[in-house]
Amino acid sequence: MENIGILHPGEMGSSIAWNAQISGHTLFWVSDGRSPETRMRAEKLSLTETKSLEELVQNCSILISVCPPHAAEEVAGQVCTTSFQGLYADLNAISPQRAVCIGEMMQSHGIIFVDGGIIGGPAWKPGDTWLHLSGSEAQSVAGLFSGGPLQTEVIGDEIGKASALKMCFAAYTKGSTALLCAILAAAEGLDVRRELEQQWSSDGSNFAEQTRQRVTRVTAKAWRFSGEMEEIAATFSETGLPGGFHQAAAEIYSRMADFKNQPSPPDLAEVLSALLNRS
Amino acid sequence: MENIGILHPGEMGSSIAWNAQISGHTLFWVSDGRSPETRMRAEKLSLTETKSLEELVQNCSILISVCPPHAAEEVAGQVCTTSFQGLYADLNAISPQRAVCIGEMMQSHGIIFVDGGIIGGPAWKPGDTWLHLSGSEAQSVAGLFSGGPLQTEVIGDEIGKASALKMCFAAYTKGSTALLCAILAAAEGLDVRRELEQQWSSDGSNFAEQTRQRVTRVTAKAWRFSGEMEEIAATFSETGLPGGFHQAAAEIYSRMADFKNQPSPPDLAEVLSALLNRS
Repeated sequence: MENIGILHPGEMGSSIAWNAQISGHTLFWVSDGRSPETRMRAEKLSLTETKSLEELVQNCSILISVCPPHAAEEVAGQVCTTSFQGLYADLNAISPQRAVCIGEMMQSHGIIFVDGGIIGGPAWKPGDTWLHLSGSEAQSVAGLFSGGPLQTEVIGDEIGKASALKMCFAAYTKGSTALLCAILAAAEGLDVRRELEQQWSSDGSNFAEQTRQRVTRVTAKAWRFSGEMEEIAATFSETGLPGGFHQAAAEIYSRMADFKNQPSPPDLAEVLSALLNRS
Repeated sequence: MENIGILHPGEMGSSIAWNAQISGHTLFWVSDGRSPETRMRAEKLSLTETKSLEELVQNCSILISVCPPHAAEEVAGQVCTTSFQGLYADLNAISPQRAVCIGEMMQSHGIIFVDGGIIGGPAWKPGDTWLHLSGSEAQSVAGLFSGGPLQTEVIGDEIGKASALKMCFAAYTKGSTALLCAILAAAEGLDVRRELEQQWSSDGSNFAEQTRQRVTRVTAKAWRFSGEMEEIAATFSETGLPGGFHQAAAEIYSRMADFKNQPSPPDLAEVLSALLNRS
């Protein structure tokens, strides 16, 4: 049984912490600088509070990072300024080359690094969420979640492989949604949206209705998809493939960023106005 | 009953010509400069041969242009150098702004212009192919095909509207296929293709197999999709939306252009090598 620190218990991170917790481990968090929502999530799960990162690392032999892509280096860098000498798992949606860089930084500070990528939503139920892991100590991380619904899979020894898989998977799910957002907005701007939806329905499918729902529902999460799309664009460019699909997707999601935290999905007309920069 | 000239009887154009023919009209083509395959198609349908564009326009009151996107202005421009004063329908996959430009050129030469866009494959069977038309004389063009399986729809008076609809429709069909080509190639380049396909199959669907087939099958047509993707990118940019999705798609299709006219689909490995510029 291990003492594990979670950086940080957001919506996804708290579900990951819970999976380790019900597998018998003790979970710690750092309250300094976190939001009231994060405190609520941590208290609901009875995670053990520490006041500072230094206090956290003195209690924990394993740290797990679950944060927005842009913050991955910052969180890892802060850990490197402490006395931590244990195992650090980065589960963030970052490009494989960034995972490699963070791994090298960690290693140079005597920290063991494991690369991870999460596919699916928060892991409260079986069949919803996959955690892929790579690195020499990947199996140790996978073992932490044996008692929870989170499905873990070790896919190799190489740092970057788990991140690469995450990038490729999200490239289609979030990339095709962004493409549909752009298409509906273009059709609206060109005054052919009704005709496009009619054509989509000509095979008797409900693709038109599904698309309208997909576009309005993604608005709530769009603010944090933009950074992930930039990671995918970088991944593609590094691999010699065009990054333009996901640079465009990043732009689409950033135009919808203001819909963050709306209690219910906005009207389609409102979303299309935002996409067309008409709002 | 009209005399109609088809510029030119390619795979799609010959099926459009046939739809007008079985509706009772007489169809003409220009043999000068055309390929042996085009001659075969024209002779199979017993289209009336003319030796030159000038001879064609002296026989026809209506001309229909069906050609690769990049050639649309050239074909229209050649017609403007003749004595033609009838109705010209451009059914090509071009941006609405290009349709407007061609329409203005035509009008300044006393030619009536109709904008069109074809959705689907060659129109030999019912339910396969739609022709959307816009412009003041759109109904006259729609009426030419009343006896064939081609489904026609007049969507407005405005030149550019039919092209806009075509662009938005192809933006998803061909855009999402290009995206999947890029993703499979990225996964191959990053050595996570097996894992990606496993994850795609985790819901019990055959999405992985469908994707492999979609990628190998599109290679035969990729050479002519590249120009269409550039038209869509231009359409999006003009509408204030990011053109990057389809600029990237154009690049993807151009990397597969060498698979043109292969008798059977190539191996997936061969396609991925071409996409990764490894061949």
